[in-house]
Amino acid sequence: MSGGTIYGVGLGPGDPDLMSVRADRLLRNARHVAFFRKAGKKGQARQIVNGMIPEGAIEFPMEYPVTTEIPLDDPRYNEVLSAFYADCALRLTELADAGEDVVVLCEGDPFFYGSFMHLHSRLKDICKVEVVPATTGMSAAWTATGQPITWGDDVLTVLMGTLPEDELVRHMNDTDALVIMKIGRNIAKIRRALDTAGLSDRAWLVQYAAMPGQTVTPLAEADCEKQPYFSIVVVHGQGRRP
Amino acid sequence: MSGGTIYGVGLGPGDPDLMSVRADRLLRNARHVAFFRKAGKKGQARQIVNGMIPEGAIEFPMEYPVTTEIPLDDPRYNEVLSAFYADCALRLTELADAGEDVVVLCEGDPFFYGSFMHLHSRLKDICKVEVVPATTGMSAAWTATGQPITWGDDVLTVLMGTLPEDELVRHMNDTDALVIMKIGRNIAKIRRALDTAGLSDRAWLVQYAAMPGQTVTPLAEADCEKQPYFSIVVVHGQGRRP
Repeated sequence: MSGGTIYGVGLGPGDPDLMSVRADRLLRNARHVAFFRKAGKKGQARQIVNGMIPEGAIEFPMEYPVTTEIPLDDPRYNEVLSAFYADCALRLTELADAGEDVVVLCEGDPFFYGSFMHLHSRLKDICKVEVVPATTGMSAAWTATGQPITWGDDVLTVLMGTLPEDELVRHMNDTDALVIMKIGRNIAKIRRALDTAGLSDRAWLVQYAAMPGQTVTPLAEADCEKQPYFSIVVVHGQGRRP
Repeated sequence: MSGGTIYGVGLGPGDPDLMSVRADRLLRNARHVAFFRKAGKKGQARQIVNGMIPEGAIEFPMEYPVTTEIPLDDPRYNEVLSAFYADCALRLTELADAGEDVVVLCEGDPFFYGSFMHLHSRLKDICKVEVVPATTGMSAAWTATGQPITWGDDVLTVLMGTLPEDELVRHMNDTDALVIMKIGRNIAKIRRALDTAGLSDRAWLVQYAAMPGQTVTPLAEADCEKQPYFSIVVVHGQGRRP
């Protein structure tokens, strides 16, 4: 493959100071910078790098055609998103074919529940693609709690709050340490599941880890209505420690 | 608390280019740099930062009194290590009391199965301690495979290869995506467990992720005798993707 490279660059949890040296360098030398955002919003990834993009760089905001307007299990959701990702991939391929490198901004680590994965799967066989791993939002969350997440032989389970309650409980019952992401409107279900699993007393809610407005509260004290997208629940392992 | 600060600085998976901007800056301005190592070895954390420590900085190698010579379940193991960590913490406290900042080098992310945690628990109530999160070795491992680890609502489970075989199998049977660390001499047991769980065909072995000598091989083709410490097994999730 000739042409430019598409870089999927993990920006880490939000604080630009936690970006990798490689991400920082790629960004400060970028000529094309692409990023996802919800229509009408600035985009979280783009905001992380405010002031870092060189003058004259061309920005390519990739605006989701839909976020929560169509339910996930509606077949139209997949159709609409699939067409959107294909279109974004085409645009990026055109740039690469013209010899241009493109930095695609990715919150967190690109290969860990990231949107870039949907571009990567469409680009990897037709362009040069490089992925820069990064600090995850969950690392920032457990660091914010001031306690290690895992000790010794602890098992760590990462769950999405979108899972059915019985699945959440089953996994919670068979792990030492726990991280729950995609909290949002699932917070009440997650709290019930943690109650059932007997973990409520050990659960912490971290909002905006490594971002302005970071908060760390015992989950028992958290608002049960709705949580911001950037919320993570953490239950620390209790494993072996000398 | 007055005095200096003890910084537990995550260095990431091994490539200095994947270190955070904050870690890089703390290190290049350090006056005291502490790190764990096995007696007689240079120490992996110390090697990552070769050439980055300022001239005149004072290095404090903390040499493990024991690594694999005493079995983990022997009470002497805990006693010896506990005394060692207490002694290291005392030395660091003396520096902080004298107003000195100390950078403690941590491979990967300090609060994710890290040795620094044993110092942190002894220091946090008597000195100022700050932890800098970082890219984990497992992020580098799944990035090295060229495939995302988790999609949609995938459950990710992180297991230590030191667990009993039946526990490994039970967890493998109830997850979408899987990471196994602490491979070493446990490789044959891990392969049997993956066979039992029907995951062998999807398992990859990554050695030295983001370090010189990185390799990625299907686990089925890997040496079953012994693997280096820096080996990680990855089984990718297969979740929802538009």
